[in-house]
Amino acid sequence: MKKIVLTGDRPTGPLHLGHYVGSLLNRVEMQEIHKQYVMIADIQALTDNFEDPMKVRRNIFEVVKDYISVGIDPSKTTIFLQSQIKEIAELTVFYMNLVTLGRLERNPTVKTEMKQKGFGDSIPVGFLCYPVSQAADITVVKAEIVPVGEDQLPMIEQTNEIVRKFNRLYNTECLKEAEAVLGKAKRLVGIDGAEKAGKSLGNAIFLSDDSDIVKSKVFSMYTDPNHLKVSDPGNIEGNVVFAYLDIFHNDKEEVEALKAHYQKGGLGDVAIKQILYKSLEKLLAPIREKRASVQDVDIYEIIGHGITETRKVTEHTIDEVKDAMSIMKW
Amino acid sequence: MKKIVLTGDRPTGPLHLGHYVGSLLNRVEMQEIHKQYVMIADIQALTDNFEDPMKVRRNIFEVVKDYISVGIDPSKTTIFLQSQIKEIAELTVFYMNLVTLGRLERNPTVKTEMKQKGFGDSIPVGFLCYPVSQAADITVVKAEIVPVGEDQLPMIEQTNEIVRKFNRLYNTECLKEAEAVLGKAKRLVGIDGAEKAGKSLGNAIFLSDDSDIVKSKVFSMYTDPNHLKVSDPGNIEGNVVFAYLDIFHNDKEEVEALKAHYQKGGLGDVAIKQILYKSLEKLLAPIREKRASVQDVDIYEIIGHGITETRKVTEHTIDEVKDAMSIMKW
Repeated sequence: MKKIVLTGDRPTGPLHLGHYVGSLLNRVEMQEIHKQYVMIADIQALTDNFEDPMKVRRNIFEVVKDYISVGIDPSKTTIFLQSQIKEIAELTVFYMNLVTLGRLERNPTVKTEMKQKGFGDSIPVGFLCYPVSQAADITVVKAEIVPVGEDQLPMIEQTNEIVRKFNRLYNTECLKEAEAVLGKAKRLVGIDGAEKAGKSLGNAIFLSDDSDIVKSKVFSMYTDPNHLKVSDPGNIEGNVVFAYLDIFHNDKEEVEALKAHYQKGGLGDVAIKQILYKSLEKLLAPIREKRASVQDVDIYEIIGHGITETRKVTEHTIDEVKDAMSIMKW
Repeated sequence: MKKIVLTGDRPTGPLHLGHYVGSLLNRVEMQEIHKQYVMIADIQALTDNFEDPMKVRRNIFEVVKDYISVGIDPSKTTIFLQSQIKEIAELTVFYMNLVTLGRLERNPTVKTEMKQKGFGDSIPVGFLCYPVSQAADITVVKAEIVPVGEDQLPMIEQTNEIVRKFNRLYNTECLKEAEAVLGKAKRLVGIDGAEKAGKSLGNAIFLSDDSDIVKSKVFSMYTDPNHLKVSDPGNIEGNVVFAYLDIFHNDKEEVEALKAHYQKGGLGDVAIKQILYKSLEKLLAPIREKRASVQDVDIYEIIGHGITETRKVTEHTIDEVKDAMSIMKW
């Protein structure tokens, strides 16, 4: 049976190959099976980009272009903008009465991110309440499935606590618990060998990179620093080129043969990089082509359509929620 | 010059004489001088009445009937319902990024109320964030004047901190600082002699009480427990009847004469209560009459009209705020 899925991104930079294998491919599959919503979390993005709001605004368009380019189909997937759905703010305010300060301070995801961001004593309450606002994002479209990384599991647990508390308190079943689905998705290392490819880390290949940039990024990839001569045996552990070949090269047998050859000696870095570059180009060329065919005005329309579709659902949800709370409607 | 004023009430019970001298009279004056908004804080009322939302709903109508009965004129004063203005929730969420947890925890009003309500370790974040949501209430209509009690001064200071921070951060002047105006209003003691007449304390004379109830409340008033015989000298300190006569009896000279007589001896409690009852009836009879002429459907329309008027302003405010934050509009 079709279920409602919610996923999304913060529009803080263009999407890269890490997103492609980590979430985009999954969404292209999901849209065939389920009713999928993809939320561009522009309000959330502003929380730590308030000094550069134009960056967020520009990246909304870049991110949606990336979606369309990889095959997310706006006739199947509803793409919407968090800032345009007032009902999310309304639910956030309602839910804030159902969650204690202590509970939020104990949320492991919040705790970890609070340390990472180094807020110290001056935590913005907006940041602390992030799990509450995420509960609003999820429940406003009545999402039943939320694809997440392992680190996000406590957030979904927090959402479901709120759902149960609300439904019990107001004797209703209008809110739905969501299931966190851990993706089978792979994590992609950075081209510099760092654990993660990140928008802001400067170590990612973007879906919108042109062919020359992809080439130069591939040729700058971290390999085996001790593999100095072609004839030397090379190490494939921690070798970024092989990590990418494992994921992006279609012929798995050829990859195994290349690995054996490289380990034995006689296969140079230039040669394997050339092979990887070709594999990536096979993937990226059609994405790039699709991207070039999409104008900003198309994106504007796609988002507008998604917002209209989403509002139909969220206005219904808020009506049900307010009914349950005995709030009249004027 | 006409300024914008915001006041309001929590719809948790009908209004009483304490409200009349504490705020309602002031509003009847204000509406002639300024552009006045009166907000019924139904969302706020739900925070500690979630177990009985129908009480809040019923009292919205009672409170607005009280307004109309005392002369608040819906053609001069805009009466609106907090729950119907989505922009308040939107602003609340935006402002939460501008306020730190530490700052809220140091807010003296929050600190005091937190102790009073005995939350202990389980403070709902909604309660903690009350000053933020109040900042949203005030700024969404661009209020320049907020009549407050002394205990509410830190709340307005918090609002203005948020206004200054927002305007500085987004390089705008779209939000306005508000001036807290300490009312010249008097505080009314309870009929039992308690410091304050309160809705929930059972010691107040309601504007909607009928004549018999007013009489029985006046005759149950706390006077001087040692004034046993009419001929005894009586004490006017802490004597509720004289406290009320001071406020509600039109002839100040007569009140002074009564006080002298009572202190000397020879004036009985029944006599002074009879005088007070008549004074109160002079005030309350026309209010009661006006009240009887107003139907629920009129109130429904008055609120509906106020909401429409308010939305014109709040939609403009949120547009300006989102513009300042570079959030596009679809």
